[in-house]
Formats: sequence, structure tokens, C-alpha cells
Amino acid sequence: MTYDDFLAGDPLIVTAALTGGVHGKEANPDLPETPEEIGRAAAAAEDAGAAVVHLHARRPNGERSFATERFQEIDDAVRRHAEDVIIQHSTGGTGAPAEDRHLPLRTDPAPEMASLDMGPLNRYDHLTSENTRGMVDALHAEMVERGIKPELEVFNDGHLNEVHGLLERRELADPVYATLIFGGGTLTPPRPRNLRNAVDNLPEGALFNTLGFGRHQLPFATMGILFGGHVRVGLEDNVYYRKGELAESNAQLVERVVRVAEELGRDVASPSQARDILGL
Amino acid sequence: MTYDDFLAGDPLIVTAALTGGVHGKEANPDLPETPEEIGRAAAAAEDAGAAVVHLHARRPNGERSFATERFQEIDDAVRRHAEDVIIQHSTGGTGAPAEDRHLPLRTDPAPEMASLDMGPLNRYDHLTSENTRGMVDALHAEMVERGIKPELEVFNDGHLNEVHGLLERRELADPVYATLIFGGGTLTPPRPRNLRNAVDNLPEGALFNTLGFGRHQLPFATMGILFGGHVRVGLEDNVYYRKGELAESNAQLVERVVRVAEELGRDVASPSQARDILGL
Amino acid sequence: MTYDDFLAGDPLIVTAALTGGVHGKEANPDLPETPEEIGRAAAAAEDAGAAVVHLHARRPNGERSFATERFQEIDDAVRRHAEDVIIQHSTGGTGAPAEDRHLPLRTDPAPEMASLDMGPLNRYDHLTSENTRGMVDALHAEMVERGIKPELEVFNDGHLNEVHGLLERRELADPVYATLIFGGGTLTPPRPRNLRNAVDNLPEGALFNTLGFGRHQLPFATMGILFGGHVRVGLEDNVYYRKGELAESNAQLVERVVRVAEELGRDVASPSQARDILGL
Amino acid sequence: MTYDDFLAGDPLIVTAALTGGVHGKEANPDLPETPEEIGRAAAAAEDAGAAVVHLHARRPNGERSFATERFQEIDDAVRRHAEDVIIQHSTGGTGAPAEDRHLPLRTDPAPEMASLDMGPLNRYDHLTSENTRGMVDALHAEMVERGIKPELEVFNDGHLNEVHGLLERRELADPVYATLIFGGGTLTPPRPRNLRNAVDNLPEGALFNTLGFGRHQLPFATMGILFGGHVRVGLEDNVYYRKGELAESNAQLVERVVRVAEELGRDVASPSQARDILGL
Ligand SMILES: [Zn+2]
Ligand SMILES: [Zn+2]
Ligand SMILES: [Zn+2]
Ligand SMILES: [Zn+2]
Repeated sequence: MTYDDFLAGDPLIVTAALTGGVHGKEANPDLPETPEEIGRAAAAAEDAGAAVVHLHARRPNGERSFATERFQEIDDAVRRHAEDVIIQHSTGGTGAPAEDRHLPLRTDPAPEMASLDMGPLNRYDHLTSENTRGMVDALHAEMVERGIKPELEVFNDGHLNEVHGLLERRELADPVYATLIFGGGTLTPPRPRNLRNAVDNLPEGALFNTLGFGRHQLPFATMGILFGGHVRVGLEDNVYYRKGELAESNAQLVERVVRVAEELGRDVASPSQARDILGL
Repeated sequence: MTYDDFLAGDPLIVTAALTGGVHGKEANPDLPETPEEIGRAAAAAEDAGAAVVHLHARRPNGERSFATERFQEIDDAVRRHAEDVIIQHSTGGTGAPAEDRHLPLRTDPAPEMASLDMGPLNRYDHLTSENTRGMVDALHAEMVERGIKPELEVFNDGHLNEVHGLLERRELADPVYATLIFGGGTLTPPRPRNLRNAVDNLPEGALFNTLGFGRHQLPFATMGILFGGHVRVGLEDNVYYRKGELAESNAQLVERVVRVAEELGRDVASPSQARDILGL
Repeated sequence: MTYDDFLAGDPLIVTAALTGGVHGKEANPDLPETPEEIGRAAAAAEDAGAAVVHLHARRPNGERSFATERFQEIDDAVRRHAEDVIIQHSTGGTGAPAEDRHLPLRTDPAPEMASLDMGPLNRYDHLTSENTRGMVDALHAEMVERGIKPELEVFNDGHLNEVHGLLERRELADPVYATLIFGGGTLTPPRPRNLRNAVDNLPEGALFNTLGFGRHQLPFATMGILFGGHVRVGLEDNVYYRKGELAESNAQLVERVVRVAEELGRDVASPSQARDILGL
Repeated sequence: MTYDDFLAGDPLIVTAALTGGVHGKEANPDLPETPEEIGRAAAAAEDAGAAVVHLHARRPNGERSFATERFQEIDDAVRRHAEDVIIQHSTGGTGAPAEDRHLPLRTDPAPEMASLDMGPLNRYDHLTSENTRGMVDALHAEMVERGIKPELEVFNDGHLNEVHGLLERRELADPVYATLIFGGGTLTPPRPRNLRNAVDNLPEGALFNTLGFGRHQLPFATMGILFGGHVRVGLEDNVYYRKGELAESNAQLVERVVRVAEELGRDVASPSQARDILGL
């Protein structure tokens, strides 16, 4: 995907990362935590232009959960409220047992998509998010079996190299779909040159999605639009609307990136168009 | 460091990575394993133009060791055979207890330099090289205490971001000295654009060293020379001289990169000049 | 100027290139040609957010003119209609006698800014826009004498090199202000990587303005906003609002880029703020 | 052409630019001026590894000449002394009448290759090297007619855009072969990032040759080798062997770049291999 695809006006897939497992309502009171809240947020995001919702599950106390039934409750609520939005489950998680990370794949029906973290990251002072090749391959194998499209999460250019390694080890359905992630910590430094460079390192024919954390969310989404990629926004990645002002909702963040896309002349893909693009 | 420093003919620091902990004589019969072999290899590398030797220690059975006494034996042998070469101990290691990784810092005298891995990496199918921020900070604190210059090992652009984080958390003596590493696995993909891009992401005023694994060793060293950086070669990183032909010795690899530097008009730094450049 | 300046929210200078010497009302019936039309268009552009108007003059028959009195009539009309907008006269022109290109500098008062083309370009099949170093230096000398800030027009990376040459030959008031231009012909190919690369080649401390011709106007302006630069839009460079739809006015193009800047969180500079930034 | 072609060891075409029209023996007493001197220099360059000789002609007084008979004398001398080297005539020239620039194409036999400058350049204070599209097309038409392979000379990224324009206007035989030129004046600034960027802007499938002027000759040739391109060296472009030391001969410059290529593991193409690569 390149600037030519932007010029051609290829439809833009907007993914809304509605919630997450790290921060909760203490960071933003409008962050949805319960299945019902997430279901309503998904419907509002879809109305605003999101074709995909990226989902994490929580226990009633707000802590992260990988349990299939938690995802099932959320999916049921999403399907109740939203019309046609594509459900993407997160399988990422620091310190979770490897088996637990398979549980989000086992809802009925399976999610259409699931995230697949491509390598390790430092967290806080003493933690490492492990994503060994064995774990990646096992998750991918179950995704294939259950007809789930992997969203390859690429946190730095070492992970980009792991994408090439995965393609050598296993067969991936076309198109390869990778999210290029920018922020602090062990992530690629959030500079425009690094997005440009990451795109130049993708496997031939791969599609990309752009994710900047915090205040980098909107500028990296905008570059993603211009460079011919897709975008992800939402309260999981950024709780502010602008400096010093909390976002009112996931939908508000989706609405803004949709306005930018429309100003720039890229149409926003419906869930059905997104299915075509992603080969779901 | 930039092409201007190359044009100015700034002296080039050659580091020879003589041995390592991963492969041994089964990969190349000329790879030095015993203290005596390593001492002789260091002397030959110094004669060939290396200012720094990067060292790992092994048990008598050839397995990796972090023990202070193993490093002491090696250092003693290096000092017996070599004239003035700078000793750099590796502190990196997959799966080693965090305390063990401090042991290489405790020889008497301390090594002038020690490696400091900046983040996590996948290894093989099921391992992660952990380098949490806590481990990095603890190793750095002991290096400061013992007057050891850290060589920051940067395996991908997430690690480059961790360098910026380290500079925010702790005070580092000038100049910051980082090795930019290229290869397979979780490393930055070995493409010229990625070296150029990595250099653009370094902290202001940082010096860099270039390390390409395997067949990327010489081309990345050559780009390191041209882009104003320093270079690392040696049997730890590459056992071949050219395709299908094992290297005869560490010195042979040093000699070649020195010839390339000389053709390109960059003088090779003596250990004493390297101390000036690195602020040892 | 970099992404950091974008993040810091530095005010954005919008230049409106209202008319030009190449195409006229046959290309867009709303393109202003007479002094009165240009004056009204300047006022509307200023209301929409432009701090600078870039001006060309025409004979009553619509053909390009360099005559001082034509510029005087336009400036008088601009000052009648607009409030405080900065006037920038074009000195560029294919095939015009060198002396004629000085005439736009001689209005009373002098324009606050004037364009200075940095090198030659091919035009059509058989023409070359000549901008010899002698011509550049003579124009610059008169600008200095009359207190006019040069806007250095950089059509390709050879011109960027000429900027460095100009800085060696002559003293330029800080900050150096260069317009990076992208399009067809002898211009830098309009690709995101080339804007990123051009910015990396600017003299230290230089400010830049981004100009994409035709359908590249808005995407390059948007990248200019994100990369910490300034932007130029207007009917001289692009007569369409979107594919197949002519722009209604210069102001409409200014309004859109202002909306994009506001969505992205960059304030738009008033003429008075622009004077501060440019050192007028 | 990319780093992968370097890794694959694709043979390297070395072009020797033996003489030129700008400087003569006053700049370097070993610069060949007469047909006999040029013939001997061509033979020595071929022995050293050059597959192509790039030629200019001079009048007996040393001034530049475009006359067919001058080129004929040189070609005759080259064929007398050299074995199999490919002859490439320059058609470039500042201020020469357009018709004169066709004369170097009319020797018998025609040269196998001829240079084709892709756009205008500033020269000195008051000159412009004109290369209008009309002139380019006319030269190209005669090259096609006479079976001469064009070497597209690209002095900046505007000229690179003109290459794309030429491909839209006219049919070019595969492979397109472009020389990317770096230096002062209106040329692309000689920085590694600009070579990397230029290569990224080439038409799909194009081959490139790397030319750095003066002290940039060897470093840009070395990057050309590493980035999978071809190289040009010689006294036309650079009269020094190293800082403050004049080159002894064209062959000395060829020998050095051949040594660098051999250290880096790229074989040097014979004239016959070069014919295969270039489709002559
Ligand atoms: Zn998530
Ligand atoms: Zn090591
Ligand atoms: Zn203009
Ligand atoms: Zn020439």
C-alpha cells in the first residue's frame, strides 16, 4: 500500500480499539468496561464509521480476562447493538499463561479477526511481554483452524522481521494485514520517518494499519491515510481528544479521523467493504 | 555521526567479537574458546587493527559462563598476549539469572567496557532474551560504580526507543555509544535503508557502531564506515570469510575491514585513540 | 522544523497563491485576474485563515506581466479589501528578461516578501526556466536593499543544493524560508518519502513551506502540517476542489486546509504571528 | 536493483570517464586529451576492470568538440589499443547548439552507448545547461535509429521525474539505465540518504549507475556497489586519488574501485557481461 492507493481513493478501514486491559474508567470515565457498555460503544463507533472493533475482556472488577465466556458476553452485546461491525479479539497479554491467550479464539461463532503480537516488549520496570515464536505459531494455527483472520501487531522493526519469519514458517492467507505501532517504551519511535521506513519493510502485497499511542494517535492515523494504509483509533490507545481534554467516547475519536479522511478524499469502508479488502 | 565525519576522516574504532556463547568450534574450528586461545586471538586482532575486543566466557566444556573467574582468566590471557587493546565484556545472555549477568563486571581490574542489551528478543522457538528496564538499570548502575563504559546493544528500533528511555531515567556519560545490530529474528531487517533510518533516530551526539550478522557483516561494516560510525566484526557474529568459505581467524576478518577502511580513506583508531573517542 | 514542532502546536502559516501567470479563467472561472478580483480574493483568503498572499500580475488581456504598476494596482486593491495580510510578489518567470523580474520588487511600499526561484526547470517541449546564480544573486541583493523577505522556491533537490550554495555566497537573514515544491516535470516526484527527504536536506534552522501541484496540493499540505512546516494552497497551483470538481474560490481551498490543521491541533497563524515567525 | 542484487553477487559494471570537456591537463597532467592518449587510457582502464569508457572529444587546443570526426579519431584509437571495451559518447554540453550535440552519435560504427542528460543545470554564475524535452527526445530518436543505448544522466530528483516523463512520451528499450549523480551546484546533495532515496524513485526494473563528483567519487561508488547498482569513476569526475594527492591515471581509480568491489564480494563485469546486462 502506498501513496498511489491514497490517490486512487481506496476505502479506508477504521478499527476502533474500544477498551483494553491496562487502563479503565479511572483514566477516562467514558471507557466502556462491561459487555453492555462495550456493545453500545461498538454500535456508536460503527455509526461513526468504524468497520472493525478491537476488543478486550474484563472481569467484573475491571481486571483483564482472557476467558472465552467473557468474550462471548461482549460479542453477544456487540451483536445486539451494532449492525454489521467486524469483531476482532485481542490475544495479547503480558504475563498471561500461553494457553489462556487461546481462549479469546473460542467464542461461538469465532471472531472474524484476532490480534497476533509478533514479538516481545518491555513493560514497566520488571516485566517482559513474551510472544515467542512457538506461541505465535500456536495462536496462528488455531486461527487458521477456526477461520479467523490474524491482525499482526508489529511494535517495532524487529517484529517486522518476525513477520517475514512467520511467512517463511507458515502459510498466511492473502492479504497479510499488519498493524504498525508507534509510541514509547520498546515501540518504534513515533516519528514520520519511521512510519515511512516501516512501510518500506513490509512483505510485498501486505496491507497495513497505523496505530500511534497517546497524542500520536491522530497524526499517525493521518499519515496512515496518506500513505495508503488503514487506521486504528480508540480509548484503548489514547484517552484524550486533545491536550488536556479527555475524549468523550470512542465514537468521538472515530468521527474525527473519519472527518480527516473525508477532507483528504478517502472514503471510509463499510464493514462489508472491509471484509472484501481483508478477504474475510 | 554522519557522512561528514567520514569525509573528515575521523578514526574508525574496530571492535573484534572474538568468540561468543552460542556457537563454538563446531561452527568454525578457528573460533577461540579457551582463555589462551582468546588471548592469542585478541593479540592477532589488535595487530590487525582492532582497538576493542568483545569477550564472552565459556566453561571448559565450551558452554557459556558468566562467572567472574572465567572472565578473569580470559582478561589475564588477553593482557599477556595483546599490547593495549580495550577489553569489553558481554553481559548479555538468554535465560541467565539476572544476578549472573553482573558477574562479568567484577574482574580486577574491571573491563574498560561492557555490553548492555537494550531490550528483549525472541530466540529459537520458545525462548525470549529478557532485558527488562530493571535489569538494564541495575547493570548500568554497577558499570557506573566500577567505571565501565556501557556499549548499548540495539537489536531493533524498539531498543533504540529504550535508549531514549534510559537517557531519561539515568545519567549517561558522554558520548553515548550504541551498537546498531542487523540480522534475522527479532533484529532490524538488514537493509541499507534501515541503517540510515536507525542513525537518524539516535540521541543527539551519540556515536554508533555497526554490526551485521552473517553475510551482512562486511556490507554493514562498510556502510558504518561511510556513514561516520564504527564497526564490529568477528567470529561471534559471522564464521564465514565469504560464501561457502570459513574465515581463518578473527584477525582475517579484522584485516579485511581495515583494508576497506583504508581504501575509503578512514584511518583506523589505535586503542589509545579509541579511548579518547569513547571518553574512557 | 520537525514533527516535534507539530506536536508543540507551532502556528501554521497558510499562503494563498491566488492567481498565477500560466492559466486563467479558462481553467477556472473563479480564478481572479483583475486587481479588483485579486483584492477581493485576498480578503476572502485572509478571512479563511491565510496569512500570506502570493501574487502574480497580468495585463488587461490576461497575459503575465512583470510591470511594477500592475503589481501596484493589485497591492492597492489588496490593501483596500484585506485587513493585514502579508503581500508576497512572484519574481519567477520563464523566458522573461532578467531585468523585468526585478520590477515586482519596486512597488511602493515594497512587498513584505517575494519569491526567489532557486534554479532551472524544463517547461513544455522547448523551454527552460532559467534562474542562473547571477540572476538569483541580483534579485536577492535588491530584496535585501528594499527590506523584502525572500521565499526560496525549491523545485527539486538540485535547487535545495543551490540553497546551500546561496548561503555560502551571500548572507541571508534568519530564518531561511524555503518552499518545497512537488509535482510533475522537473519537480521532485510527489511522493511522501521525497518530502521527508527534502526536509532532511534543509539548512539547519530553515523553515519550510509545502507546495504540491494539482491533486497533490492537499496531501502535501497535510504532510507539511504534520512535519512541522507551513503550507501553500490556491488556484495558481490547483484549480480543483476534488477530482472532477473545480474549486469555487481560493478561500474554499484555504478553508479546507485550515479545517485539517484544526483537526490536527495546529493553530493557524494570523498575519501578525506570521510576521513574528518569519522575522518580517 | 537493491541490496539483494548485491548479496546475490551480480556483476558490477565499471564505467571509466576518462576525460571530459571542462578541465584538462592543467587540473591533472595525466588526464588524456589526444585520441592516442585516450586510446591508451581506455586500454589501461579496461585492463583494470572497466567495461565501459565514457568519452568526450577535444579540439587540438584542448577545448571541447562535438565534431563527429573528433569522436571517430578517438574511437579508432580506443579500438586500436583496447580489446573489447564498450564505447559511450557524451552528448552533454553547456551552450552548444542543439544540432551539434547529435554529432557524437554519427561515428562509424556508432558508439554502443551515449549519454542523455535529463534536464537543466546551472553552471558558473551566468550559464544554464539546457536540456529541453525537445532536445532529449530528438537525441533519443537518433539513438534508437542508430542502435545506441542511452545512458540517462540524472543530476537531481527533478531529472528523475523527467525520466518518468520520457518513459511516458517514448518507448525505451529494457533495461532503463540511469546514472545517479551527486555533487555541488544543481546536483542532488551528496549524502547517503539521497542516494537511497533516488534509488527508491527509479522506474520499476531500471538499472542504476552511481557517480559522485570529486571526493564523493569513491564513497558513492562504494554505496552503488552495496545498493546493487553500477559505478562510474575517472578523471572527468575527480582528479584526485585522495586528499591532496592527484590520481596517477584513470586506471588507478578503476583499480581501486575494483579492489573495493572484490573485497565486498561483487565480481566485476567484463565488457561482454556488461553487454548482456545492458541488453546491447
Ligand atoms: Zn488491544
Ligand atoms: Zn557478544
Ligand atoms: Zn507563483
Ligand atoms: Zn561526461
